[in-house]
Amino acid sequence: MLINRLNTFDDDFDSKLSTLLAWEEETNDGVNKVVRGVLNEVRKRGDEALIEYTNQFDRRSVVDAQELVLGEEELAASLAAISPDQRQALEQAAERIRVYHQHQTQDSWQYTEDNGTVLGQKVTPLDRVGVYVPGGKAAYPSSVLMAVIPAKVAGVEEVVVVTPAPDGVVNDMVLAAAAIAGVDRVVTVGGAQAIAALAYGTDTVPKVDKIVGPGNIYVATAKREVFGVVDIDMIAGPSEILIVCDGNTNPDWVAMDLFSQAEHDEDAQAILVAPSEEFVERVYQSIEALLPTLQREAIAKQSLAKRGALIVAKNIEECVDLINHIAPEHLELSVDDPESLVPAIRHAGAIFMGRYTSEALGDYCAGPNHVLPTSGTARFSSPLGVYDYVKRSSIISCSPAGASELGKIASVLARGESLEAHARSAEYRIAEDEK
Amino acid sequence: MLINRLNTFDDDFDSKLSTLLAWEEETNDGVNKVVRGVLNEVRKRGDEALIEYTNQFDRRSVVDAQELVLGEEELAASLAAISPDQRQALEQAAERIRVYHQHQTQDSWQYTEDNGTVLGQKVTPLDRVGVYVPGGKAAYPSSVLMAVIPAKVAGVEEVVVVTPAPDGVVNDMVLAAAAIAGVDRVVTVGGAQAIAALAYGTDTVPKVDKIVGPGNIYVATAKREVFGVVDIDMIAGPSEILIVCDGNTNPDWVAMDLFSQAEHDEDAQAILVAPSEEFVERVYQSIEALLPTLQREAIAKQSLAKRGALIVAKNIEECVDLINHIAPEHLELSVDDPESLVPAIRHAGAIFMGRYTSEALGDYCAGPNHVLPTSGTARFSSPLGVYDYVKRSSIISCSPAGASELGKIASVLARGESLEAHARSAEYRIAEDEK
Repeated sequence: MLINRLNTFDDDFDSKLSTLLAWEEETNDGVNKVVRGVLNEVRKRGDEALIEYTNQFDRRSVVDAQELVLGEEELAASLAAISPDQRQALEQAAERIRVYHQHQTQDSWQYTEDNGTVLGQKVTPLDRVGVYVPGGKAAYPSSVLMAVIPAKVAGVEEVVVVTPAPDGVVNDMVLAAAAIAGVDRVVTVGGAQAIAALAYGTDTVPKVDKIVGPGNIYVATAKREVFGVVDIDMIAGPSEILIVCDGNTNPDWVAMDLFSQAEHDEDAQAILVAPSEEFVERVYQSIEALLPTLQREAIAKQSLAKRGALIVAKNIEECVDLINHIAPEHLELSVDDPESLVPAIRHAGAIFMGRYTSEALGDYCAGPNHVLPTSGTARFSSPLGVYDYVKRSSIISCSPAGASELGKIASVLARGESLEAHARSAEYRIAEDEK
Repeated sequence: MLINRLNTFDDDFDSKLSTLLAWEEETNDGVNKVVRGVLNEVRKRGDEALIEYTNQFDRRSVVDAQELVLGEEELAASLAAISPDQRQALEQAAERIRVYHQHQTQDSWQYTEDNGTVLGQKVTPLDRVGVYVPGGKAAYPSSVLMAVIPAKVAGVEEVVVVTPAPDGVVNDMVLAAAAIAGVDRVVTVGGAQAIAALAYGTDTVPKVDKIVGPGNIYVATAKREVFGVVDIDMIAGPSEILIVCDGNTNPDWVAMDLFSQAEHDEDAQAILVAPSEEFVERVYQSIEALLPTLQREAIAKQSLAKRGALIVAKNIEECVDLINHIAPEHLELSVDDPESLVPAIRHAGAIFMGRYTSEALGDYCAGPNHVLPTSGTARFSSPLGVYDYVKRSSIISCSPAGASELGKIASVLARGESLEAHARSAEYRIAEDEK
């Protein structure tokens, strides 16, 4: 069987689906121990430890930490090194991402009450953000655009990219994306040591306020450990797509959209649900025919067999129930009238509407972010956005009359909580003639 | 010495201040082990385990899990049990909190491009939220209002409060606040077992999407463990205030404002910074005179001696630098023209402006939230707000023309990342005459 086949009519459908969806983040005591060691060393010894680990893990022979920093020249060189097509595509994508994320900016606000008391909220960008970019095979320039541009739109002054350079090699497309996105500094370090440097700061890597970006288990574990010292984005699980189709899309298109998820890695999850057994059968045949033509056939095959599924549902309403149950990272509504389904959809990272909107368009250049909540966390999490790069401060400015009024309420409540100093502090502000 | 005395002129000022500000969250292998055990048992055995732990830790003799649930009657009874003054104060505070947080609501938005492609963002409230309310001495009805009202403003359908009832006793003010805030269900369970029940669900406690609210080290550890299964708010450190005063506020007011922080617990931090040695001396004298008059003198005394400080600065600009360095949870600007300082302030949870705006007013009833980022996390975190109870979904709806255009860009980038199925999925959407 190339891919799991389920039918919502089946008695054991719920348990089969649960098994398929189950995903537990890998934790490993060995990894935890290594990571804690690396974090401690970099925290204590700074650049010295950072150089040691980088030379050891990335097979380099760095002597001076400044060798780790890529300057404007190297970034400019990478822009020249990629093809004009690639450069144009990166620039077009960057511009679209920028325009979309500008809609997410939030303004400070305040209002004044009758007695002159002012209440409000001040929105301030983070000072400095670190972006982790994996090296090697999973070096994705698109992820550089997606992580950096919202930070710049938010007004973050300094964005630092860390990326490993195994054997001294960095991907030109990644550097070109960094240049286009407006990254302020690139440091060629990776792994837990890079996360440590960003969280605690070294002479070469400045301490940041937030670290975003995916990485292997060492990187993810390190991010979890430094959470609280700095902010982090979510620890991502494997990528997933749920395609809902009414049965009228070209089955080859649907198969290829499933593949575009399955080709990521063996744990990626691609699911189709359709209210038509006949259509599901046709998609199965497309999968059978097209799978052998893929460059990444081996990975896609494993992913589909292990975690993929074609599901036959009773009707479109049941498809919507499944959407809300699964809370998919990516949701394709490959139907005639996708707008009619949207109001009922409560949980999805990104909704790709209509037969023409394949996930791949959103992954690269539609504009919305491709960093999305995985493993059902769309129930409570959002796409990476400008809102992740700002924080808010409450503004409270009481007029004497306002303070007097509020002082009376606060006094009663504070005494009810046995916090007498709170009460007395409030009571000082009550006007003499109202005491 | 009642409180630490520092002067920014001192050679060792920076290191002294660092020592004073240092705070590491307590971690304890013994606690971790106990908590993991409790989480596993409740996850596996549901209500049965919940009852066992509750009977054991809270000295109760519950037989049926339904005994743990408080209904509308109990909530109504608590409203009748508190004094009319207290009820009115709670209602006034609730109304002000509601009005303030209504300014934080966010609308879904979308825009249409020339070729008909629609991009947007859908904002959806979380389905169900759990609020942990500590029992015993630290039972704060104001915290119930602050956690629940923003959730209700956000549109969360179901808010579940869990709170321990040692020996079967629950604080009437807490229940009254729950009733006023519109809590849907109160379950009298606490500790790690309550967090487990909220995260995994039992027959009696529904699984939630997010858990908020403070608790002891068992509760905090359990929240950390279930993070990812559900969302959590920040793990709070001890509460802190930084007061900046120009030297013209009544020193008794400043002293009492420092006490209102110091009385919370021995680890709370109260700091004054003023550009006047003479004024700082007067505040010291006020502290000396007023401290013995406090009901919670013992706690405040320990807190001030251990973590409090009076700091003499060169000038008001240096005070602002200190604000941004400390990134305080609560900031009082006890000066003539607080507005002039606000633009330069980058990091603060809540800013209390002018001599009349004491923190206590904001703690209870000004309107903004009193759940604020502690221990310098105001660098990257925000007050609890409506935005914590919603999530966003990206909307992408490509017209055939839009998909054709985007398909060309996506194809180049996907092939650059060696993700061929992504490229082919995009290329399917390129119009025949443009291929």
